[in-house]
Amino acid sequence: MAIRKGEWAKPTAGLAPTHVQANLVIVPKKHAYDFLLFCMRNPKSCPLIEVTDAGSYTPVSSAPDADIRTDIPRYRIFRHGKLADEVMDITEEWREDFISFLIGCSFTFENALRAAGIPLRHIENKQNVTMYETNVPCHGAGDFQGNLVVSMRPIRADHVPATVQITSAFPTMHGAPVQVGYPEKLGIKNLQAPEYGDPVEIKEDEIPVFWACGVTPQLVALQAKIEIMITHAPGHMFITDLLDSEIGR
Amino acid sequence: MAIRKGEWAKPTAGLAPTHVQANLVIVPKKHAYDFLLFCMRNPKSCPLIEVTDAGSYTPVSSAPDADIRTDIPRYRIFRHGKLADEVMDITEEWREDFISFLIGCSFTFENALRAAGIPLRHIENKQNVTMYETNVPCHGAGDFQGNLVVSMRPIRADHVPATVQITSAFPTMHGAPVQVGYPEKLGIKNLQAPEYGDPVEIKEDEIPVFWACGVTPQLVALQAKIEIMITHAPGHMFITDLLDSEIGR
Repeated sequence: MAIRKGEWAKPTAGLAPTHVQANLVIVPKKHAYDFLLFCMRNPKSCPLIEVTDAGSYTPVSSAPDADIRTDIPRYRIFRHGKLADEVMDITEEWREDFISFLIGCSFTFENALRAAGIPLRHIENKQNVTMYETNVPCHGAGDFQGNLVVSMRPIRADHVPATVQITSAFPTMHGAPVQVGYPEKLGIKNLQAPEYGDPVEIKEDEIPVFWACGVTPQLVALQAKIEIMITHAPGHMFITDLLDSEIGR
Repeated sequence: MAIRKGEWAKPTAGLAPTHVQANLVIVPKKHAYDFLLFCMRNPKSCPLIEVTDAGSYTPVSSAPDADIRTDIPRYRIFRHGKLADEVMDITEEWREDFISFLIGCSFTFENALRAAGIPLRHIENKQNVTMYETNVPCHGAGDFQGNLVVSMRPIRADHVPATVQITSAFPTMHGAPVQVGYPEKLGIKNLQAPEYGDPVEIKEDEIPVFWACGVTPQLVALQAKIEIMITHAPGHMFITDLLDSEIGR
């Protein structure tokens, strides 16, 4: 309700703990089939929580009392692949052919890692997670084509097996890492120069671990330069009624 | 090649063991978005292995050398929800707007159960698995609406935990059971009168275990009475290049 009333316009990390938070991508119906197919073909980077009916702003299965148009703190409106506006409410922009895609984010498995005693430096430092564009092509669908984006977290070597086990339990939230320890094999040349988020220190006894990242579908949709796309602003997520514990099943 | 040449027109159970077999549903592009959305909303009954590009008869990710039009032993052609023909080749029927959905089947987890020493009576008896229509509604999408169809296998009570564990390892092949032991809660009145497949004996020390069944999307598409839909004939599956061991990940 605070978000809906415009009283909370800040990032949502740490809000409503144990509740699943989601990325939002809204596209017009004419692009929805290809975007849905892209998500189906790339489930590790595009784990779908829900796809609404055309014109409906109610996520009936993940948050039936919510309104997609008002219940995210900040939205970004892109026209033909360019950022056109950042707003707190998209009621005025709403169209009958809009379809909302709610896509899983890594907050869920990060909570599980921290509960298991595996520290995450970007959270301790109150920074954004480190993200890189890779040279690994996604499976394209129609106009939606592009490379995988990964997030990276430095993990102590002796924590790597448990990290893989714990994140594997969340296949609908990016799941197991895509790679452990070899950034150059993903085409990442400089770990200290991420394309998105903040760079992070990697200590002597730590290994960089890479996960498929929900920025992938958003970036691919931008590159497709569709006439309009609306997303959440980075870090300003949609909070669902689902519990982390439900989604791990 | 034997199937392609028309030299194998029989069911595929037991062929190419360790290779994943798939259900086929072909629909015209105008129905593909709603059908894809139906599958996404009901992943336990509709685990998608691959969705081809419109007009393409090549399953590029699961069997790149195959031809969807010739590489299944028998096809069924439905017009407006009615069976119109059963053929061994659909090359003549092919249209530029056809999209093929390859949907996981239970052969994969059945192999894993038997490898773990859990017998399956319908296989021992060389019969079709027992299937029921339930009163559990699926999450609909557009014209595609209907109830969940389940398969049932009698499992010895002391094997039930391992059965749940083993099938849980195949989330993209129907995964864990939807229910254990209470047919009446699914709206099933008489276990000896299944809607599909063959009835099966349930012994004193056995419990009926129910899984979401790949017949669900096919039935829902039939009920939508779309102008044309092509499927495999029951038991005559599409054999992919994927290995059971790959799909368990």
